[in-house]
Amino acid sequence: MTAPRAIEWVGDEGGFLRLLDQTRLPTEIAFRDCRDLESVRAAIKELAVRGAPAIGVSAAFGLVLWMQRHRTPAGFPEAVERLRSSRPTAVNLMWALDRMAVHFAAATGDPVAALLAEARRIAAEDIAMCEAMGRHGAALINDGAGVLTHCNTGALATAGDGTALAAMFAAHRQGKRFRVFADETRPLLQGARLTAWELHQAGIDVTLICDNMAAQVMKEGRIHLAIVGADRITANGDAANKIGTYGVAILCRHHGIPFYVAAPSSTFDLSLPTGDLIPIEQRDPREVTHGLGRQTAPDGVKVYNPAFDVTPAALIAGLVTEKGLIAPVTEANIRAALA
Amino acid sequence: MTAPRAIEWVGDEGGFLRLLDQTRLPTEIAFRDCRDLESVRAAIKELAVRGAPAIGVSAAFGLVLWMQRHRTPAGFPEAVERLRSSRPTAVNLMWALDRMAVHFAAATGDPVAALLAEARRIAAEDIAMCEAMGRHGAALINDGAGVLTHCNTGALATAGDGTALAAMFAAHRQGKRFRVFADETRPLLQGARLTAWELHQAGIDVTLICDNMAAQVMKEGRIHLAIVGADRITANGDAANKIGTYGVAILCRHHGIPFYVAAPSSTFDLSLPTGDLIPIEQRDPREVTHGLGRQTAPDGVKVYNPAFDVTPAALIAGLVTEKGLIAPVTEANIRAALA
Repeated sequence: MTAPRAIEWVGDEGGFLRLLDQTRLPTEIAFRDCRDLESVRAAIKELAVRGAPAIGVSAAFGLVLWMQRHRTPAGFPEAVERLRSSRPTAVNLMWALDRMAVHFAAATGDPVAALLAEARRIAAEDIAMCEAMGRHGAALINDGAGVLTHCNTGALATAGDGTALAAMFAAHRQGKRFRVFADETRPLLQGARLTAWELHQAGIDVTLICDNMAAQVMKEGRIHLAIVGADRITANGDAANKIGTYGVAILCRHHGIPFYVAAPSSTFDLSLPTGDLIPIEQRDPREVTHGLGRQTAPDGVKVYNPAFDVTPAALIAGLVTEKGLIAPVTEANIRAALA
Repeated sequence: MTAPRAIEWVGDEGGFLRLLDQTRLPTEIAFRDCRDLESVRAAIKELAVRGAPAIGVSAAFGLVLWMQRHRTPAGFPEAVERLRSSRPTAVNLMWALDRMAVHFAAATGDPVAALLAEARRIAAEDIAMCEAMGRHGAALINDGAGVLTHCNTGALATAGDGTALAAMFAAHRQGKRFRVFADETRPLLQGARLTAWELHQAGIDVTLICDNMAAQVMKEGRIHLAIVGADRITANGDAANKIGTYGVAILCRHHGIPFYVAAPSSTFDLSLPTGDLIPIEQRDPREVTHGLGRQTAPDGVKVYNPAFDVTPAALIAGLVTEKGLIAPVTEANIRAALA
């Protein structure tokens, strides 16, 4: 990885949070230095930082910045809620804030030092999980392979090297030569703007395609495996991920290409038996009709814009977690691996 | 159809060619009135008029405009070549120009009247073929159906109602209620800009989706058939069409949804035994990285941008032609239908 880190705490107790501004990518590398809670909240709301783990880590540091100014428990719960409301549906954000609150309630000594230590632990654990996923995922990438990925699951989405992209960074460090095809990932183009940028920065051979070109690239025999991330994985192994993932899995099945999902154990929701129970969030139609700098569809046309889809376990060759590869994907294997 | 015609000859021998400027759609309805050959050539080059049949018809009228000014055979072959070079790979353009040249060589009397009569015949035949395809295609659309389509195959691409969209216009005129899902069709967004606009104008229930959402809509049980157009169909029934078509066909097969291709008999190339022999044209990477009003990918990233793909006959439930439905898709059935 030669790319700048998405999240960095600069200094010690008196330090600040430096975020790579992802809204300016890929045409500009700019940073946002956050010195108070509100600037962290704004960065999350404006998608300057995105990706579930990255949001959680950023919010944890946001509480450190709040405590630098206030140095008292009074108002701390309100600060937590203020950050919680920045991305109401982000599970990792809630998890990180809750963990910071629990730690703070039990802490003694300097409150800034206590919170900074916990935020750094959250970041360090995320980095370690990415490293482990990268190690297990890299084993799937053979020298000379063609790898397809969808959306962004890299260093920009985590404190570490990412989930699916971590496998590629690790394989690259191991000296393997391989080629990545990155779906641009409409409507918000995280593949074009972020994944292509991260891989290109790292010196990995990456080729950008439109989502609808993946089948043709597979037909040409240039894809040997696909690896994507996940937002949530249910007890039976069904995986919710960015819209378009399910279609990629079907195309892989048709062409006999193994399809893998990389996600840390915190992504698994064993309380849900199957992915059919995950509601599909609908997003703003303007992401489709106006998301690219100019209006690309007629006024008044109806738009269907699901944020993600669910890939059934039957289409998934294996789940790459920090605890190893889970394959075949069965509830028994998942429960055994996560136990 | 309540939408304005893409191509209209206004007046008689002294008239002019009025083209709907497709580069201004869907935000603006503007016309280009062409009164000489060069303005027709510019309209074709700049994609103000596109779609293989529409280009052929426009070029035929372009020769009428040339003859209005020159009224002599001298220079006519050069005028033909001037139009031929406007879109060098468009088969229908070559076919229409050759037909005009042959007709002119045999014509007696007023040369403008002779050329105008032949151009009008080419347009009328195109309209009649569209009408017949629409009639045969409409029979596939049941009341209450959900129909998926890809790219633009409507009145904007032909002198008539189109190929795949002609089926929808005809079913709509028959009073059938059905719903169309239109793939936006990256990179050039013909689905979002043109298909959604045409169907919306005609009062047909249309919902725009990104290409990578088709699988999810199918999974939800909302698609009962897919109909697309074709650029070329080989003797065995393999169909070359806009990039992304092959992927749609695979998704249909996975979900048990019939996938149809609508094209006039002039689209069939019986000299090619299979679609493997069709070279895949690569287009400008900037269509992917800069095509939407702003730069959406990092500088220097590699791009793969195939213009079309080939769907094997085995994935096609039937071919809708002006001569009727060819199903199952076999070489024997194709040769019998076209004979």
